[in-house]
Amino acid sequence: MAASTPSLDLTDDVTTLTARLCDIPSVSLEEAPLADAVEAALRALGRLEVTRIGNTVVARTELGRAERVVLAGHIDTVPLTSDPENLPTRRVAGPGGDVLWGRGTVDMKGGVAVTLRVAQQLAEPNRDVTYVFYEAEEIDSRYNGLLHVQEQAPELVEDADFAVLLEPTDARIEGGCKGTLRATVTTKGIASHSARPWKGHNAIHDAADVLARLVAYRPATREVDGLEFREALNAVGIQGGIAGNVIPDRCVVTVNYRYAPSLSESDAEAHVRGVFDGFDVEVHDNAGGARPGLHLPAARAFVESLGVPVEAKQGWTDVARFSAMGVPAVNFGPGDPNLAHMDDEQCPVEQYGACEAALLRWLG
Amino acid sequence: MAASTPSLDLTDDVTTLTARLCDIPSVSLEEAPLADAVEAALRALGRLEVTRIGNTVVARTELGRAERVVLAGHIDTVPLTSDPENLPTRRVAGPGGDVLWGRGTVDMKGGVAVTLRVAQQLAEPNRDVTYVFYEAEEIDSRYNGLLHVQEQAPELVEDADFAVLLEPTDARIEGGCKGTLRATVTTKGIASHSARPWKGHNAIHDAADVLARLVAYRPATREVDGLEFREALNAVGIQGGIAGNVIPDRCVVTVNYRYAPSLSESDAEAHVRGVFDGFDVEVHDNAGGARPGLHLPAARAFVESLGVPVEAKQGWTDVARFSAMGVPAVNFGPGDPNLAHMDDEQCPVEQYGACEAALLRWLG
Repeated sequence: MAASTPSLDLTDDVTTLTARLCDIPSVSLEEAPLADAVEAALRALGRLEVTRIGNTVVARTELGRAERVVLAGHIDTVPLTSDPENLPTRRVAGPGGDVLWGRGTVDMKGGVAVTLRVAQQLAEPNRDVTYVFYEAEEIDSRYNGLLHVQEQAPELVEDADFAVLLEPTDARIEGGCKGTLRATVTTKGIASHSARPWKGHNAIHDAADVLARLVAYRPATREVDGLEFREALNAVGIQGGIAGNVIPDRCVVTVNYRYAPSLSESDAEAHVRGVFDGFDVEVHDNAGGARPGLHLPAARAFVESLGVPVEAKQGWTDVARFSAMGVPAVNFGPGDPNLAHMDDEQCPVEQYGACEAALLRWLG
Repeated sequence: MAASTPSLDLTDDVTTLTARLCDIPSVSLEEAPLADAVEAALRALGRLEVTRIGNTVVARTELGRAERVVLAGHIDTVPLTSDPENLPTRRVAGPGGDVLWGRGTVDMKGGVAVTLRVAQQLAEPNRDVTYVFYEAEEIDSRYNGLLHVQEQAPELVEDADFAVLLEPTDARIEGGCKGTLRATVTTKGIASHSARPWKGHNAIHDAADVLARLVAYRPATREVDGLEFREALNAVGIQGGIAGNVIPDRCVVTVNYRYAPSLSESDAEAHVRGVFDGFDVEVHDNAGGARPGLHLPAARAFVESLGVPVEAKQGWTDVARFSAMGVPAVNFGPGDPNLAHMDDEQCPVEQYGACEAALLRWLG
């Protein structure tokens, strides 16, 4: 490894370690220095089987325990968009306790720090643990490090009984996740000069019915494994028009359907096609959700051990990838998810300690 | 004038002269060589008062006639967009007679050639004539050569009793023109993650009502000075959306209202604001139409002399600028207006001769 590799001290307290991780910038596709540092620190512990795939690092205990769990988190962040940039981190005293400001403090280097602290402190956890630190979660899924593990070395992950993804949940347990489908609904007309529209046909006007159906749509709320998932169907984009004096011959409405994990991907597609029956519907991406699976023994033990609130995860997260590999998974991590990707990304340091303590209680 | 100025021979037959004019490319803002050639040819006739403003050339007879008329046309074209380019011109035999292919054969170097032929042949027309060859009609109106004459030397034009604009009309007379107003209708919402739309408000869904009003709208047809103008209100653009996972906080519908010349610009604005009552409406441009004025003596003489069909002009043209200067105006020129700006721009050569003959009949 190059002499310039930044180093990590896993014996730092969890807030110091979070700040250190954030101060090694790792915007998606630029994770190599941080991945190098994580790999080096884990190898230095001398008791983990470490595998590197791209900029993804997997480290496993091999203690022969009856149960194996995954602790996972992505090491990339979205870009630094604010001016001045929200880095380096600043620890600021507040009325409710100290707050750590900086890109990654919520999404999700706090969760990465918690995971590294657990790996450092628990030489002999009560369950075998597979630690996963993966690249490129924030961009197009073909770059996703967890997907690469699933494709290239699934045996590293799929023997687990349960997974905790340390995405920000405000230190609550969020079970499962909704699926997400994106489709375009296209209307086609005939272009003509806008002074003589009767020679053409206005495709934007035809989109009135598409929008009317969206306005009239009443989304379902479905209970799955005891948690309530609120569905949603929304236009997330609309585009039409050629020039200011031309009747447009095409209008494209992009819709996003967020659906309960009790629906399969094909159920979801059929539903959207039904809503827009009679229109030209093209599905562009469709990723099924994940059932919370909280009735399974490993998950129940986790919930009981932590004693924190349990809710449905409304967003899509990589728990769905674990679910697809046959590993039930939940989200549990420090930070308010509403601050993820925001210019004022920040996290009360108390949450880092609370998440660390909860995992040590469960695995210690 | 530079030695490289292309020259024109005004004694060429009208089709040959049209081809020559087209083969001197003059995309908007690049009209100088053609303007130089037109100016030189008119000065060489030795019997016209010639004025140059930018790349616009005005040439007047000063015969002390009781009546004065304008023959006007723009000398710019839209860009050459086809591959291969629709230039140089080609004269092609067809079942209905020869056809001249090339950029400008319709819009509107045929009309310019007709005008130059009239100027060359009629040393002593029965009415005084103001010939106007102007630049930059095809782009933003601030570049328009006729506007510059109106602003800088209105006396060159406003003493006329009647104007003929030789825009393509398939050699028919098209009287007046409709006005055109462009406005945006904007809806505003609150952005949120599309997995939790209940935390935001979808601006695209709010645009459903904007489109519904357009669909329900029934445009008027108004008779003005004996001609029927069909109005139209259309969406010509729609734009909304931030990202595939975000509830959009803004949607902008661009609408175009084409209105009869009996409505003033402020009538038109009030009408559009009324249609979209309750929405945020911003008017971006608004150019009133022109009444056909065919009841006026000079116009009636023109119509009677030509003996060709008379219709309402549905599009907006620079006849409205003449109208604003107090000069009633009509459109009359060779070429199918539906082929203007098209990659297959072409004109039956018979129309060039017919228009030339008609004007000579009127003024000779």
